[in-house]
Amino acid sequence: MPTLYQDPRSGNCYKVILTAAHLGLQIKTIDIDVTSGLTRKPEFLSKNPNGRVPLFELDDGRLLPESNAIIWYLAEGSPLIPADRFARAQMLQWMFFEQYSHEPYIAVARFWLTFVSKEQLRAKEHLIPEWHAKGNAALGVMEGHLKKNDWFAADHFSLADIALYAYTHCAEEGGFDLKSYPAVGDWLARVAATRGFVKMGKAV
Amino acid sequence: MPTLYQDPRSGNCYKVILTAAHLGLQIKTIDIDVTSGLTRKPEFLSKNPNGRVPLFELDDGRLLPESNAIIWYLAEGSPLIPADRFARAQMLQWMFFEQYSHEPYIAVARFWLTFVSKEQLRAKEHLIPEWHAKGNAALGVMEGHLKKNDWFAADHFSLADIALYAYTHCAEEGGFDLKSYPAVGDWLARVAATRGFVKMGKAV
Repeated sequence: MPTLYQDPRSGNCYKVILTAAHLGLQIKTIDIDVTSGLTRKPEFLSKNPNGRVPLFELDDGRLLPESNAIIWYLAEGSPLIPADRFARAQMLQWMFFEQYSHEPYIAVARFWLTFVSKEQLRAKEHLIPEWHAKGNAALGVMEGHLKKNDWFAADHFSLADIALYAYTHCAEEGGFDLKSYPAVGDWLARVAATRGFVKMGKAV
Repeated sequence: MPTLYQDPRSGNCYKVILTAAHLGLQIKTIDIDVTSGLTRKPEFLSKNPNGRVPLFELDDGRLLPESNAIIWYLAEGSPLIPADRFARAQMLQWMFFEQYSHEPYIAVARFWLTFVSKEQLRAKEHLIPEWHAKGNAALGVMEGHLKKNDWFAADHFSLADIALYAYTHCAEEGGFDLKSYPAVGDWLARVAATRGFVKMGKAV
């Protein structure tokens, strides 16, 4: 059975869990606490030189890091990847948007405000206004799209929705006010009603 | 003819130029100076609410932002996207690595050290050590891969090489020392010898 090295509190890891659950795939999970420093130790670095989870290990030992690449691999040939060429590119557009314009502010604010001690937070505290400004800009871009569309690409549930759900649904843990984004709220409910949906931190 | 809205100094825009040139595709370019603030004005935001170049416009008016999604769209069906499922996922792995672990440090250091006034730089100066530490970490991960492989995925030139070439070849403008990464240097020369290669800032 393929193995997911994950921290169950990580939205990037949760994307893999959501994709596997939706597709009915069985995967084994090995939990790693990212705050322990284990992902920067030689044993883990020999598996992923970039020192991050999620890391996906196939039955034959081949290794694949990067959350959005892992869910692409799992979903190939399924309706989670649109059949139309332009819609497929739009799905990737939102997945790159998630990693560049969304995660570095929304996930990072949640991490520092929720998972580290107040003492450790002090060194990063001056960055909170920038995280909130840029995270709210990303939520605003999503709100604008979701006012006119039920899903991010191809008029149906796809990997773009899974990628963006992972850290949006728990954005309030990073100090964001989701009530200001009603179309995002409606979309979060639509995603939570999809086949096989599991909450964050649950096993597949 | 499809249109690329670009700043010719932007590596993200250069990826689209490189892909089109390699594939022999004709595209029109419209230059926008990102330091002018034009990409955050209503006229441009109506085309890309995320306010960034590159932005690609098809003949029928459909719009696609995000550099790595645009080059995916252009390259579908060509050898720039590996035919093997796992190799395709590995290509995407490196493209997400580029946007998350490479561009935010290497491209951002180059932008602030090369394209803005010394006065404007002063507000960001304290970030230079972090940009250099994380950018060198990314170059180290690339060096480790390229010591054992000629290309990033599938043992041949792919979109992963184009995505990573764009800001690596000019990393010295951001204060990085490429002489410390000899395998990266050899790979840069291999990319520059591929079919249709054009230098940054040239028309297709």
